[in-house]
Order: sequence, then C-alpha cells, then structure tokens
Amino acid sequence: MPAADVTPPSGTRDLFPADVLLRRRTFAAIQDTFERHGFEPLDTPAFERLDVLTGKYGEEGEQLIFRILRRGEHAASGEADLALRYDLTVPLARVVARYGSQLPSPFKRYQIASVWRADRPGRGRFREFTQCDIDVAGASSLVADASVVLALIDALAAIGLEGVTVHLNDRDALHGLVAAYGIPEALGASALTALDKLAKIGPDGVADELRARGVADDAVAALHADLSAADPTAAIVARVRSDARGRVGLDRIAELMALLPAEAGVDVVHDPVLARGLGYYTGPVFELTHPALDASIAAGGRYDGLIGMFGDEPVPAVGGSLGLERILLILAEQQGLEAGGAGPGPDVLATVLDPADAADILAVAVRLRSAGIGVDVYSGEGRMKKQLRHADRRGARFALVRGATERAAGSVTLKELTSGEQTTLSEEEAVRFLRGRLAEAGGRDGGRDGGRTDG
Amino acid sequence: MPAADVTPPSGTRDLFPADVLLRRRTFAAIQDTFERHGFEPLDTPAFERLDVLTGKYGEEGEQLIFRILRRGEHAASGEADLALRYDLTVPLARVVARYGSQLPSPFKRYQIASVWRADRPGRGRFREFTQCDIDVAGASSLVADASVVLALIDALAAIGLEGVTVHLNDRDALHGLVAAYGIPEALGASALTALDKLAKIGPDGVADELRARGVADDAVAALHADLSAADPTAAIVARVRSDARGRVGLDRIAELMALLPAEAGVDVVHDPVLARGLGYYTGPVFELTHPALDASIAAGGRYDGLIGMFGDEPVPAVGGSLGLERILLILAEQQGLEAGGAGPGPDVLATVLDPADAADILAVAVRLRSAGIGVDVYSGEGRMKKQLRHADRRGARFALVRGATERAAGSVTLKELTSGEQTTLSEEEAVRFLRGRLAEAGGRDGGRDGGRTDG
Repeated sequence: MPAADVTPPSGTRDLFPADVLLRRRTFAAIQDTFERHGFEPLDTPAFERLDVLTGKYGEEGEQLIFRILRRGEHAASGEADLALRYDLTVPLARVVARYGSQLPSPFKRYQIASVWRADRPGRGRFREFTQCDIDVAGASSLVADASVVLALIDALAAIGLEGVTVHLNDRDALHGLVAAYGIPEALGASALTALDKLAKIGPDGVADELRARGVADDAVAALHADLSAADPTAAIVARVRSDARGRVGLDRIAELMALLPAEAGVDVVHDPVLARGLGYYTGPVFELTHPALDASIAAGGRYDGLIGMFGDEPVPAVGGSLGLERILLILAEQQGLEAGGAGPGPDVLATVLDPADAADILAVAVRLRSAGIGVDVYSGEGRMKKQLRHADRRGARFALVRGATERAAGSVTLKELTSGEQTTLSEEEAVRFLRGRLAEAGGRDGGRDGGRTDG
Repeated sequence: MPAADVTPPSGTRDLFPADVLLRRRTFAAIQDTFERHGFEPLDTPAFERLDVLTGKYGEEGEQLIFRILRRGEHAASGEADLALRYDLTVPLARVVARYGSQLPSPFKRYQIASVWRADRPGRGRFREFTQCDIDVAGASSLVADASVVLALIDALAAIGLEGVTVHLNDRDALHGLVAAYGIPEALGASALTALDKLAKIGPDGVADELRARGVADDAVAALHADLSAADPTAAIVARVRSDARGRVGLDRIAELMALLPAEAGVDVVHDPVLARGLGYYTGPVFELTHPALDASIAAGGRYDGLIGMFGDEPVPAVGGSLGLERILLILAEQQGLEAGGAGPGPDVLATVLDPADAADILAVAVRLRSAGIGVDVYSGEGRMKKQLRHADRRGARFALVRGATERAAGSVTLKELTSGEQTTLSEEEAVRFLRGRLAEAGGRDGGRDGGRTDG
C-alpha cells in the first residue's frame, strides 16, 4: 500500500483527551443553561440537500461549501447532490418549514454542532468547527430578543466567563444614522462597514475609510467630529434622533434595554456604530464582549426575513451565537490545558507483572470498580518500572500492585504516584482509603464533570 | 425561490429533544464507564483524505463512501479529494500512525461519533448513524481482550442493560473447525458464513446452505450430526481438538474465559460457530447478546493486522463496538419515549399577559434562575389560555403568573400544570416551594442526568 498522508485533512483536528473533555464539560454547562432558559435541543444531519444550502450565503460563502458527490451510477457524473452543513441557521429554517405547526410556538431551540467551511485555514480558523446557536422562531416581541441575550449571558457565566458587556444597536437606528449624516442610501452598507471598525482603527481611520468608500467630505467631517466628541454615543444619538426611522430604532433599543434586568448583573451599552452586516438583520443587533478577549465573544440579533425562507409566510426570529472555538481557547488557557494533552487519568492503574496473575488482578479491578473506583488494568508487556511510567503518563493517581504475598493475604499494595507513598491494605481498607483520597482531590467527578455542577 | 425539499436527506434524521436527551444521557453513561476502565476519548474529523479511506472496506463498502468534491478552481473537475468517515477504525489506525510514540502504549481509546454510509436506508438503517468503539492498540496480551469485553459489559449495565451473555470464539478455532470437518480451505470462509447463521436457520438450514455453497456431503453430514447433538458445542469442540491450529484456538478461548472474572456477573459461553467475518479478525472474537434483543448488542475481537495499515510495523489490537442505534431503540421503548417527542420541559413557564409587565417578569425569572430554578419566559403573543396550553405542550411543571396585584405584593402565583392547583406566594416562599416540589419529582437533573449517576 502506498504511504498515505496520515495528518488530519487541512483545517481539521484530531482531538485528544484534554480537548475532548474540555469541550464536553463546556458544552454540558452551556446546554444546561440554555435548557434552564427554556431552549430545547435540536440536532440535524451533518449534510443537507445541496439546493437547501445554495443561494443562502452569498457568492463568497457559496465557494466555501463542501459538496458531496452523487453515489452509485451517478458518481461518474462528477455532480454533487448533498453538502455539509455550513451553519446552523439554514437547517433551523428547514426544520421550521418541515415541521411547522408540530413545533411549539414560539420555537426556542439551541444547537451545538460542527459546521464545515472550506475557508483558508489559519490560526484559530478551522474548516471543521463547532457552532453554538440559540434562536427563537415565531416571536416578534422584544421579550424574545431579551431572552436570547439573557441566555447567552448566563451560558457564559456558567463556564466561568462572567462580567460581559452587552453592546446593543438596531438596524433602524443604523438606517437613521446613514440618513441623518446625509450619506446616500446606496453607500449606506459600505459606510456602516467602515464605522463598525471604530474600536479597531479609531475616528481618523474610520474617516479615511469612509472617504475611500466614496462618502462625501461634509458627511465624513460631521461623523469624524461626533466620533471624536467627549461622548461620541450621545453626539451620534442626537443626530440619529433627527431621522424618523432612526427614532424608531432608538426607541426599540431603549425598550430592549429596559427588558434586561439589573439583576442579570451585566453592563448594557448602546453602541451606535455596531453594524454586524446589515443584510441579515431587521431589528436589534448585539455583541457580547469580555475582558479576556478583544473581539466579541457572542453576537446576534433579530432577522425576521430568514427563518421563513423555505415557507410561504415570513417567520419573525431572533438568535445569537457563542463564539465557541474562541471561548474554548480562552478556557484551555485559563485551565492551563495543553492542546493534545492527556485528560485526567484513571483513579488506579493496576499493574500486571506476571501473566499468571492477570485473572486475579482483573477480578480485583472488577470489585474496585463496583465500589465506584476507576481502574485501568495494564495490558502491555514490561517490568514494574515501565508499568509505573505508563501509570504516570496516563495521569493515574495510584498504581496497584498485587503479587503472591498480597494475594495470599487478600491485600493490595497502593502506590500514590505523585508522592511515591506506598501502603499495603486489605481490599476493604483499600476501598475506604481510595475513596477518601480521591474525594479529597475532588475525585474524578469533581475534576471531570465540574462544568455540569457549575451551571 | 423555488420550493426546496425540506425533508432531511434520505437516511438521515432531525433529532428532537426526547431523542437528543436520550442520546446525551446514554453517551454520558457509556463514556463515564469507558473512562473508569482506563479508555481515553479521541475525536477525529468528520472527513478524511480520500486515499486514507479507499481500499479499506472491500468493493461493496467502497461504493458506500460519501466523497467530497474538490473546491475552488478544482470543483469543475468533478473529482473528490475527501470523504466522510465510514467507520472509527480507519481513523484510529491513522491516528496511531500519525502520533505513534507520543501516544501511551498500550493506547486505550474510545470514540462515540457519527459515521456515514450511502447504504439503502431501511427501518433502523441510516446513512448517518452513531458508532461507539473501544480499542486497545499495541497490546497482544489477552488482558487487553478481557479489558474490552469487561468495559462493554459495564457500559451496557450502566445504561440499564444488565444480564448480557458473552459468546466467545477464536479465529484459529474456526480454522481448526474447517480443517477438522475436511472442508477445503478455499471454501472455509463461505462455510463459516453458513455456520454463523445457526441461531437463525437451525441445523437443517445450515446443512442446506453448506451444500449450496459447495461443501461435500460427508462434511455436511458430519456437521449436521454435531449441530443436532444434545450438546452441539461439546460435539464440535471434540472435533476441533483433533486439529493442531484448532487446539491453539480452543486453548486461547479457555485462557480468555479464565480472565473474565465471575464477579463481572455475566454468562460467558463458547460458541464454536460464531464467525463474525473471518477476514478482519486474527484471534478471539465475541458477541454480546441481551434478552431484550434477538441480534447481538455488541461485538468485536482481536485484529492484529489492521491498526498498523498506515505504518511499517504491525500493531496488535483488539476492539469492540456497541450497537448503539439498536440500543437507543431499546432504551427509547423501555422509557416510553416517542421519536420526535418533547424533552423534559422547563421547571416554570412564566406567562406575560401585558407587554408592560415583561421587564418585571424577566427580572423575576433572573432571580428564580439564580436560585437554581429553570424558567422559560413566554415570548409569543396570546391570552392566558394560549400561554397555558404552550406551557403544557412544552412540558413545564408550573406556570407563573404575576399581574398588578402580585407585583404590588411582591408575590407570584404558581399553577401546577398537571393538577391545576394554584397558589400565591412571596418570591422567597415560591423558591422554597418550587425547590421542594421539583426535588420530590427527582428534579430536572434527576431526570436529565440520571445516566451519569447510574454509571
């Protein structure tokens, strides 16, 4: 057989125990939070019919869809009929169209799942990555918008990311801004893209970019002055208020702010240049930021046009996403996890020095496990030293040794791997001893499932 | 936009709360068991380089691989360069070849993940389904074989499927059988396929099939006589023992049986006609059966040739799979779950009768949640009756009502949806009351995470 390339495909990863367990713990805490907020889990297939996905992501996105070849007699055609899920919004729209009135209304669902995009891979940018979406379909009330924001805030708190700031804006307020500064509607979207970069490039940078995008000098000058004011938000809001549609947006922002209770313990600010790609959104838009990260950690908004795309009726909807891959990087760093690292090891690694002892040691392992202790039995070959090295590498807390002496006495020898301390106990005593020592350290469940109980 | 077909693609499913939560609970209990047995989680990409998968599954399997079209300028070529994971064994072999000595040795890993096969969909047969594999790579000791069997038994017990029977056999014993009955080696595999059907079609059926496959009359007669004996196993074993390779296999079966401790509480039987597809396996093979199911519920064996396929050295390995999709069907039936059904609802659904009350009710919800109670806030439009119907449909335990009277008094009205009982309490009393009532019913965590604590 010719040597195959055994690296994972470009932009994908093999995930080892530390990564898998961090993900599992993080997802569990988030899922639990979403469910406590009344969002229900939904899972959809990894691939969709090709025509369900095409025409939904613009020309650029369209290029990034992974298409699946037809099979059997049609394989030779070189044609695709299926494609890997590109996001979780289009599958939701399909589900809403398919199951319609069988779903609760409003339909509050969350989905944490892989999506695939043939993007150029880069640091922190993958072709297979996990998205985490919550949406409320079928609700036009701002209670739904507030519910999405509050659930995201709580999910972040559940994984230890407290102290987020919510940045709010509204599509109508943005339209009002464009009109109020006298920017022609045709240049509106482009101008807003420039304004959205304020935090990154500052007022001068924005002014340069606005000019480069063809915005007239007066408008640029007025914007630059307001962006450089002592209170830029107040200056811009005053201007937006001069436009009727702008006022609708400002009122909606105020209304949504009033729905986010002080008890939620977060800062909510109106960010009048927050745009998030106008095309998609129809009402409030929001971003959540956290001191641990310069970019946003979650975002979303109201998009009343999208969920109804496969049906006859428009479906009002609001949703948000957690930037999960970015969040996992922060958490791994906070927890000192190495990518590709080992997970928490077994409580006990039972050594087997003489194959003739194996049956006896496997039986001890069964008894210890039924007493709630995790036991790995060494199945390789090698002397004690090699087996202890293996136990160490696997992150086991204790090595168990049971030779002829111990067997005759019905005892086991336990060696704590960090301290090297060794003690010989009856099996019954060993269970009590191990339970005590493992509980002290929070036990494996404390370590492994911490995220579940934090939630 | 032309109406798209909004059903999930052929052979795939949309999974609703009851299904998602059953899966999550089941997987968590299995994962926990595997980890307590010293198996580590591994996750690999959904797709692999095409050449990693081709040539691994025989001609028939090859047809069932979902191939992914090249992208960008190469898309027009109609060629594929990637393919969806077809099983979890080839990715494991790739990982072993890629990371080699960086992995613990022996490397005990488990993976529970979707695989995709373009099989003809049928009842219980899907094109996207979950596999659950455990393997020990790099161990030739039968301790590894025993470890796999014991972990599978415990995993099944952890999800409530106790009382399995382990059926053991061995490839060398099967070779011995073929030789001992005078079946030509060229007909061996075919004859074993016929013998493997004994439980389904009985001795007469097997004899007919053996004849149809070209096995000579004497051999068929001898086999038929032994299969029809009072103790067919003893009769066949006696014959197999006449062959040198057969004896090697029989001794190995006895050795493995001796490694499966009585404490594990399972029946272990030698099934001399259990074959499981000879090509793959090199030593012991096994199947686990459970009274709730006529087919096997888990299976596996030793396959020393496969894991080394991408490297220069052979890697001894033994593994097993749980028949997860089948198991999930049994569990759903046992638990009376409807496919597509609702999950456990929120503890409380807070009604919002007057939009002016929304801010106050969202704040109550925040306070109740921080006291550990799950609260969904209704975000649709509609009168009390509609909101209560929604609460009922969502499976909420209580509906919360807070009008002007309650707000003035700092109280809430709670209506238990099953009994219709209604009570007005201060918020503080409400928290105590809800905690008590929810704990009585096992609470949401009792229901949701039951599988974790069973393990």
